[in-house]
Amino acid sequence: MSRTLITQTTDQVGQTVTISGQIDARRDMGKIVFLDIRDRTGLLQVVCTQDVVVSPPRSEGEREGVSIKDLKPGFILRITGLIKERGPKAVNPKLETGRIELAAKEIDVLATAQPFPFDATKEVGLDTYLDHLPFTLRTERARAIFRIQAALIEGFRQALIRRDFVEFQAPKLVGGATEGGANVFTVDYFGKSAFLAQSPQFYKQIMVGVFERVFTVGNVYRAELHATSRHINEYTSMDLEFGYIEDHRDIMRMERDVLEDMLTHVRERCLDDMRLLDATFPDVPREIPSVKLREAQEILKKEFGIECVGEPDLEPEHERKLCEWSAKEKGSEFLFVTHFPTSKRPFYTMPDPTDPDVTLGFDLLFRGVEITTGSQRIHDYDMLKASMVRHGLNPDHFKYYLEAFQYGLPPEGGLAIGLERLTAKLLGIENVKEATLFPRDISRIDERLSAS
Amino acid sequence: MSRTLITQTTDQVGQTVTISGQIDARRDMGKIVFLDIRDRTGLLQVVCTQDVVVSPPRSEGEREGVSIKDLKPGFILRITGLIKERGPKAVNPKLETGRIELAAKEIDVLATAQPFPFDATKEVGLDTYLDHLPFTLRTERARAIFRIQAALIEGFRQALIRRDFVEFQAPKLVGGATEGGANVFTVDYFGKSAFLAQSPQFYKQIMVGVFERVFTVGNVYRAELHATSRHINEYTSMDLEFGYIEDHRDIMRMERDVLEDMLTHVRERCLDDMRLLDATFPDVPREIPSVKLREAQEILKKEFGIECVGEPDLEPEHERKLCEWSAKEKGSEFLFVTHFPTSKRPFYTMPDPTDPDVTLGFDLLFRGVEITTGSQRIHDYDMLKASMVRHGLNPDHFKYYLEAFQYGLPPEGGLAIGLERLTAKLLGIENVKEATLFPRDISRIDERLSAS
Repeated sequence: MSRTLITQTTDQVGQTVTISGQIDARRDMGKIVFLDIRDRTGLLQVVCTQDVVVSPPRSEGEREGVSIKDLKPGFILRITGLIKERGPKAVNPKLETGRIELAAKEIDVLATAQPFPFDATKEVGLDTYLDHLPFTLRTERARAIFRIQAALIEGFRQALIRRDFVEFQAPKLVGGATEGGANVFTVDYFGKSAFLAQSPQFYKQIMVGVFERVFTVGNVYRAELHATSRHINEYTSMDLEFGYIEDHRDIMRMERDVLEDMLTHVRERCLDDMRLLDATFPDVPREIPSVKLREAQEILKKEFGIECVGEPDLEPEHERKLCEWSAKEKGSEFLFVTHFPTSKRPFYTMPDPTDPDVTLGFDLLFRGVEITTGSQRIHDYDMLKASMVRHGLNPDHFKYYLEAFQYGLPPEGGLAIGLERLTAKLLGIENVKEATLFPRDISRIDERLSAS
Repeated sequence: MSRTLITQTTDQVGQTVTISGQIDARRDMGKIVFLDIRDRTGLLQVVCTQDVVVSPPRSEGEREGVSIKDLKPGFILRITGLIKERGPKAVNPKLETGRIELAAKEIDVLATAQPFPFDATKEVGLDTYLDHLPFTLRTERARAIFRIQAALIEGFRQALIRRDFVEFQAPKLVGGATEGGANVFTVDYFGKSAFLAQSPQFYKQIMVGVFERVFTVGNVYRAELHATSRHINEYTSMDLEFGYIEDHRDIMRMERDVLEDMLTHVRERCLDDMRLLDATFPDVPREIPSVKLREAQEILKKEFGIECVGEPDLEPEHERKLCEWSAKEKGSEFLFVTHFPTSKRPFYTMPDPTDPDVTLGFDLLFRGVEITTGSQRIHDYDMLKASMVRHGLNPDHFKYYLEAFQYGLPPEGGLAIGLERLTAKLLGIENVKEATLFPRDISRIDERLSAS
């Protein structure tokens, strides 16, 4: 009999169906055993009496008899039986299939499982959670987080495809010419040194020359020694870049519109997941409030007594306070901070023509954390070379990249959204590692790295 | 005045509009200059008389006067003028905007460009093409190739989302436990060794335990010393994996359906690009023909006199001949070859229960080349550990991965499609490097690697 998905069974009262799924829980009530069976669509209660015929898995050499008593959480079953309405007292209003149950007749064990090492639905420490991801990701909570994450990415892509952006695949393995900075991982490339890309920056600018509007989603790498709740060494960057802009404000408006579409996509696809996680959707204001770094520092001084005027960047505490201020004074959980110092931003950032010590660049803060960095870029070939020199870089090492400017590039800019940070902040997750499927940090790649 | 996109101008005869774009070509006809201007939507002929007002770029320090004679291919312009119908003799039926032209009044130079190093629309050698990708990708041909490539990926994703697959982001940076083999790149990870993933294999199997049906698209790495027209060292793998299968034939049927949807997506989005490249869509037969390796070798002997019966794999020449045979005898440009030897396939491949020396695995050949490898996987924990030992691997090194099986995984399998190879074969491109945006090979990462 062909498989019926669990959510389809609600229409099948009185019918004999075959479902397949995993035992989520088992309850023994005297001679009757209740199994909660989960497939990709939902959960169904299965009632087993002692006369159910149970067949062992095909793939085991010995086809030993198995009986109802052997069936444990984690086992994978195919079950044929009759869909029945539950008695009124047995109805579970929280469950989509809560008015019905499956009276099992035949059970094929498709795969067995060992006893679970612990109850993953209870709160476990982060290290234990990460030590056992192939097991701990199987909770409702983890499933909800990563379904929402998938919807965020898909929403990002759809928002951009609608606006004529073309997707491209950026290389992660790059040669000598990197953006600079010490935080790069080195790869042994046939006896030479290559590096893991810190961003698709150069490639997306090159691609603006090809398609005018481009985006890419992929892993990027930061060899940072940080061990904080905000940092991971491999993360997913959602990047866009487009030409024919007036200035950085066109990029900020585009981010606003894309974020709105992303959240709409999540709302359409994952409302139940958002509810399960008690997560709230932020409003995306028609115009996201924006302050210059200097203004932000004045606000921090005036409102919170924090002295940081003149510093080149914001500290994490500053970002939290600014978001408090924005929520209270501007009614927005999003806040742009613009005009960071030219000397502290990458060489390709466009200086403000009216004050070249600061840039037409921005960060977007959301619920206390920076989730985006973006800017108008320098598109003029000579100006870009001069900026490289001022930033201590040798333009001769960037000939390939510079060709994009040499043969004409429109005024352009772009931004990158950190997927895991956005996911964490949207869902109220404390540590970004819980919003990263398989997080890499200084002490862990899947398993903990040995001290040696 | 706000920007009008070039394809929108066809409705604007008699109107004054502002377009922005790059000079594709310039033709001087006495005192009149014709400029072909390209934006992301198309190409438009612009007519400039000597009285057009030309303004220099804002970003250059000196605002020197520029005139029509200074405008060269590559320059980025904003042009305001009147949309007019062309005279009947001047109509260009090949161009979407071929019945109109723009009579320029004002031109702002947004960016200048240096003289092009060569004519990229003429045939250039592969090395020259690759040496100058930021410039050579700006041809109609390259644009068409990579728009189609983007549509293939998007078609893959949409086909799977429709079928309840959940997307996930697989790590590229992996720890000690790799699939084995010498072809891995080593990364210096804070003084320890990490590796670039050869595939998302372990992660997609782990994720079957979470979502039942999953897919991921991303870069994978092979440190192969090959320098052929079929190999690159970083490529894009489109991976899917799903549970509750009967055997490998469920995976093969899924691939057939997904390929059909992908090609439909390309047909809907990129028909003009396919025409430009003279590329033909393959038919996807209701059932793609399938032969066992042994049968394939018998065919090669009988039909082509090639002696290879008993060899563990197919040579490139064999793949070409088998595709010839399939096209002629089966009317299909696709051909599955199944049942490769267990000893030559990865440890996680399910052996055929009726003949454990061969596997329930397959390759998909298309137009002479293998574009997919897939299989049913071993889902039983003990069987998988035993297979590791037989393949010379130590299960203790795979504890993390093995947890997916320890706590119950359904019968499952999956496949990977090489994006660049598929693109090349679909479009009749000889060398896979031309179907790879920024190809990495043994002698090149963007620029050629120095011999030192």
